[in-house]
Amino acid sequence: MKGFAMLGIGKVGWIEKEKPVAGPYDAIVRPLAVSPCTSDIHTVFEGAIGNRKNMILGHEAAGEVVEVGSEVRDFKPGDRVVVPCTTPDWRSMAVQQGVPQHSGGMLAGWKFSNFKDGVFAEYFHVNDADMNLAKLPDEIPLPSAVMISDMMTTGFHGAELANIPIGGTVVVIGIGPVGLMAVAGATLRGAGRIFAVGSRPKCVEVAKSYGATDIINYRKGDIVEQILSRNGGQGADSVIIAGGSPQIMISAVKLARPGGTVANINYYGSGDIIPLPRTEWGCGMAHKDIRGGLCPGGRVRAERLIDVVKYHRVDPGRLVTHVFHGFDNMEKALMLMKDKPADLIKPVVLIDG
Amino acid sequence: MKGFAMLGIGKVGWIEKEKPVAGPYDAIVRPLAVSPCTSDIHTVFEGAIGNRKNMILGHEAAGEVVEVGSEVRDFKPGDRVVVPCTTPDWRSMAVQQGVPQHSGGMLAGWKFSNFKDGVFAEYFHVNDADMNLAKLPDEIPLPSAVMISDMMTTGFHGAELANIPIGGTVVVIGIGPVGLMAVAGATLRGAGRIFAVGSRPKCVEVAKSYGATDIINYRKGDIVEQILSRNGGQGADSVIIAGGSPQIMISAVKLARPGGTVANINYYGSGDIIPLPRTEWGCGMAHKDIRGGLCPGGRVRAERLIDVVKYHRVDPGRLVTHVFHGFDNMEKALMLMKDKPADLIKPVVLIDG
Amino acid sequence: MKGFAMLGIGKVGWIEKEKPVAGPYDAIVRPLAVSPCTSDIHTVFEGAIGNRKNMILGHEAAGEVVEVGSEVRDFKPGDRVVVPCTTPDWRSMAVQQGVPQHSGGMLAGWKFSNFKDGVFAEYFHVNDADMNLAKLPDEIPLPSAVMISDMMTTGFHGAELANIPIGGTVVVIGIGPVGLMAVAGATLRGAGRIFAVGSRPKCVEVAKSYGATDIINYRKGDIVEQILSRNGGQGADSVIIAGGSPQIMISAVKLARPGGTVANINYYGSGDIIPLPRTEWGCGMAHKDIRGGLCPGGRVRAERLIDVVKYHRVDPGRLVTHVFHGFDNMEKALMLMKDKPADLIKPVVLIDG
Amino acid sequence: MKGFAMLGIGKVGWIEKEKPVAGPYDAIVRPLAVSPCTSDIHTVFEGAIGNRKNMILGHEAAGEVVEVGSEVRDFKPGDRVVVPCTTPDWRSMAVQQGVPQHSGGMLAGWKFSNFKDGVFAEYFHVNDADMNLAKLPDEIPLPSAVMISDMMTTGFHGAELANIPIGGTVVVIGIGPVGLMAVAGATLRGAGRIFAVGSRPKCVEVAKSYGATDIINYRKGDIVEQILSRNGGQGADSVIIAGGSPQIMISAVKLARPGGTVANINYYGSGDIIPLPRTEWGCGMAHKDIRGGLCPGGRVRAERLIDVVKYHRVDPGRLVTHVFHGFDNMEKALMLMKDKPADLIKPVVLIDG
Repeated sequence: MKGFAMLGIGKVGWIEKEKPVAGPYDAIVRPLAVSPCTSDIHTVFEGAIGNRKNMILGHEAAGEVVEVGSEVRDFKPGDRVVVPCTTPDWRSMAVQQGVPQHSGGMLAGWKFSNFKDGVFAEYFHVNDADMNLAKLPDEIPLPSAVMISDMMTTGFHGAELANIPIGGTVVVIGIGPVGLMAVAGATLRGAGRIFAVGSRPKCVEVAKSYGATDIINYRKGDIVEQILSRNGGQGADSVIIAGGSPQIMISAVKLARPGGTVANINYYGSGDIIPLPRTEWGCGMAHKDIRGGLCPGGRVRAERLIDVVKYHRVDPGRLVTHVFHGFDNMEKALMLMKDKPADLIKPVVLIDG
Repeated sequence: MKGFAMLGIGKVGWIEKEKPVAGPYDAIVRPLAVSPCTSDIHTVFEGAIGNRKNMILGHEAAGEVVEVGSEVRDFKPGDRVVVPCTTPDWRSMAVQQGVPQHSGGMLAGWKFSNFKDGVFAEYFHVNDADMNLAKLPDEIPLPSAVMISDMMTTGFHGAELANIPIGGTVVVIGIGPVGLMAVAGATLRGAGRIFAVGSRPKCVEVAKSYGATDIINYRKGDIVEQILSRNGGQGADSVIIAGGSPQIMISAVKLARPGGTVANINYYGSGDIIPLPRTEWGCGMAHKDIRGGLCPGGRVRAERLIDVVKYHRVDPGRLVTHVFHGFDNMEKALMLMKDKPADLIKPVVLIDG
Repeated sequence: MKGFAMLGIGKVGWIEKEKPVAGPYDAIVRPLAVSPCTSDIHTVFEGAIGNRKNMILGHEAAGEVVEVGSEVRDFKPGDRVVVPCTTPDWRSMAVQQGVPQHSGGMLAGWKFSNFKDGVFAEYFHVNDADMNLAKLPDEIPLPSAVMISDMMTTGFHGAELANIPIGGTVVVIGIGPVGLMAVAGATLRGAGRIFAVGSRPKCVEVAKSYGATDIINYRKGDIVEQILSRNGGQGADSVIIAGGSPQIMISAVKLARPGGTVANINYYGSGDIIPLPRTEWGCGMAHKDIRGGLCPGGRVRAERLIDVVKYHRVDPGRLVTHVFHGFDNMEKALMLMKDKPADLIKPVVLIDG
Repeated sequence: MKGFAMLGIGKVGWIEKEKPVAGPYDAIVRPLAVSPCTSDIHTVFEGAIGNRKNMILGHEAAGEVVEVGSEVRDFKPGDRVVVPCTTPDWRSMAVQQGVPQHSGGMLAGWKFSNFKDGVFAEYFHVNDADMNLAKLPDEIPLPSAVMISDMMTTGFHGAELANIPIGGTVVVIGIGPVGLMAVAGATLRGAGRIFAVGSRPKCVEVAKSYGATDIINYRKGDIVEQILSRNGGQGADSVIIAGGSPQIMISAVKLARPGGTVANINYYGSGDIIPLPRTEWGCGMAHKDIRGGLCPGGRVRAERLIDVVKYHRVDPGRLVTHVFHGFDNMEKALMLMKDKPADLIKPVVLIDG
């Protein structure tokens, strides 16, 4: 079969591979819609997870089941499914410790285009189908479905980690697609005022539509000063980091009130350390919790997110600014994610055109 | 001054009383808008809290500060305020135990028209103004403001107690004004599917506008059967009780999945016991948490709810179906709450006409 | 192989069955020590879980692995193991919902002598060995090991559900073996004062050794009055129910302070309802959480409990008042549990004598 | 009256001041026993909280009430009391936000020898006596009582923040008096294995008596390697930091498993930043929560800790290695804390000799 792959650091292209084989609990899925992610860019062009040779890229997909193992009970060929980007091994100690994302090791619940071939292929393999897939209702369009697999679960996880009280004040730093879903997630948890930090007009427009009440442009001055000054000098209940280098943590901690929470869903790709500001972290004693985590996977999670879309709580389709028709446009879509033109949030490739 | 009072069980009328006096931390407030509550009806006509003679009624108000004690720092005469129905003593052991509502004894954080004169008066007394009042922004209309004081904080508390996961399935039993705010609160916490149990057309209409996806009419059959059958035989993640006799708990527990939560914000006015169904509570072992609590009070809570309204997350104004102009309409408004005509959700009396 | 079985309601005896067969993820275990449980008595003599014909009894065991399926990685024949009484299916929606105990349906994580043959046999079957077994260190004697499988995990779960603050006041109702482990569990979570309700001298002695500070004898008057009077009229932070009929819930709720927790680990075998006292539950608004659940299963849990014993935090061996040598004493041990002589807490049968 | 004061950075001595005056809710207390704290050393000799002139030192005391304000209800002259080192203003927004420690600003719940005169005086002032004092039972000796005021509440807070599961594996970094109380606190929350990092023989001995199972000497190699190697390569469920420079956070994060918690109760007195290790914090996604906070204050907290001592759960008296008789020994005791001889954990000065 054909797949669009990382050939080595800095190089991508089409390759031929054997069609994957399903173990007794697994499924083989044919993608219907996929989307490249900033992580794919980090993987290929920055070598963020190390060198990989001829690894098929992509971890965001909706698809059609084409084959299932002998022990799969709830899915059959022909089922349309959302495929979460994180597909844990449910038979693992990490599950019993409450963090399936880390089954098999820290972050190892993320398998596609990390430990195995990804979804930019004619077919891809899903471990433990009954536990990791969710059926896609007809009323959800494919571009929205593919946004559920990573952007929505990741952005919402930021809101979950952030411990937002009803009516609480929230800061979301970064309004790329994940940050935008964090804004939507904060609204979904009942936030009152939401400061969103970003500048690209298209992102600003969508941030507002998802519930941001104040847009903070980091080009117009220090974001901490801007936000504290608008907020009567008070820190926020919750700060969600969805972009930036490790230094952003310094601003985030300054922006949280004593007893508030900083939630990170940003992947820090380089640097030895992530700094906390000593004084504003209360010399270690401010009760500003610092949390951060990979998005949860699993079928229950995916089914709940599908309900969020199905019942019109949030429309993730607004993230999709560019739609390509046909598999051949895979590289074009990926390069768009690399070049980030001003009007881009997320591209989607509809495989069947 | 004049006040509209409970004269004794079953009797209401206007009385004259001394204008209340502010202690050093207190405020005297003149109501701008008030609303009668079903609790007022229970208090007067069912003697729910025992006999009270010449006690001024009412605990839902927005008003204007007319006087403050010497130690009040943040409020001054002329300030427009939301007055939460629950006004705890913040210097109490219950606060240190995490339940200010129960300062001074179980439920004793509720003082208006319970332990002291209520808000249906020319003036009323607020203990600890800096801790219990919140400033009302100009952009919030008075009818919405008065809904914050009880309906919103109580209904939302149901959603908070119910431990709703993002995209979770919720049942709200009862769609009077508190139940409607529980529906809005469930939506605000990120619920997916929301079953709302009720039948009055006006309430059904507002329930849908607040996010209910399925309306269940208890006149059309057992609500447990109706809901489980629509939900694929599965129990809900969260069940909120906002109406009914103690027997309703049996349905509520049946409706929750193992590991789910039943949250009660209904005041059970009579009966010796509240029954749980033994088998469906897993013979004591189903991990179906049963919770219930009086709405939180306090300024931080009120300020957050004000932000929910100010930033257009929820419009509580939809609850207000009847607006009266002038204090003299107090009795008319109260009787409306007693008679519950088909088109009623909540009446509000604007004092200054 | 031979097994000691429930032949039908009210009848027990030895039967012959085929030796169980391990699926790819399973293990076959030979018991080294087993203990009858009050649940076995309920099952056989009260028909608590319905009629069962020729079902081998028993769910408390430590044993030796004799065979493993092809996919088992961490256990091999000869390994000595603790076998938790609850052995969930880890590939289930209940796990993703946070309650593995209820995988496959409410309470269905409990399989031994419920949905399949139990441990009172020459060999028994353990599903998903890598996820459900834990290695037994040499330094833990067999009678202690078998107490880990049910008494300790169940009693401790009561303490976990009870939300005990450091130094908090706790009531434990019932000091049979589960209640005694709840006392030990409350001590282990940092309780200050612990009221233990019971009367049998042997149990009282062990309760004190596990940390009970006040013994309340229900034969000497109403337990609510006795405890509130000793506690300055204040309710407890946490109440754990480890015995009694459904009526005990009335006392438990009365004993909790507003904001406190009632945790149930008692199996209610009969009656339609479990009553809450309306008034003392604050007419539905007291913030007295009512919780109850089947003990968690799983390897991580078992390994942690093994550490509790290994590092001398709690000695569950004190529960074992009677030790029998040889499989043939199975019936004698079971009948002891039925007859409950004054000096009994738990009997253990060492299979190899 | 006489007080032992910081005269300026690096200088201490006796000064004369006016006896403090009680406001209506306050008390004046005469110390019966006091103890110098490492914080006093930081304050005086490192200028950790900036310059202070003629500020009486000390924040750890048990005492006798000599005077109360007109509104104090529960205390009267002659009452023996524990005085928590943190005495929040309970009428503050921080209380409503759940962090009384930060009432009046970050860390501002700590008042003694910070914003007002401390307890090393003939008399000292306690704000809001009913909310901040706790009666000392006769059976608790004064040296133990004074350990409750800071060491115990701070060390235990580390264990509370660390989210320790029953039987969980815990690392405590630093076994000075606070770290020792963290060890005791971890045991009190049900920890299984406890690694304690330290080297002084006296501290090691007491750490073992409080429940440490493995002593790790940082002089014998990297603590991360030592602990992971002993723990089968696995990280700990919980890591408590009770000593070290900001760099210690790097080790702490490395020592936690994915999903585990790092709890800080160490005061970081210098440096701009506190570093997290990027890779081992999972590039921001490891679900290793980082928490840290000033000890809680308040009467309920103090009463619970008193019960911990009264019911023999933990004996804080083991911390007291040096007892001085008479106020005049104040300086000697303080200098001991500065010089830290090998056999010192904590000195106590009994005022009345």
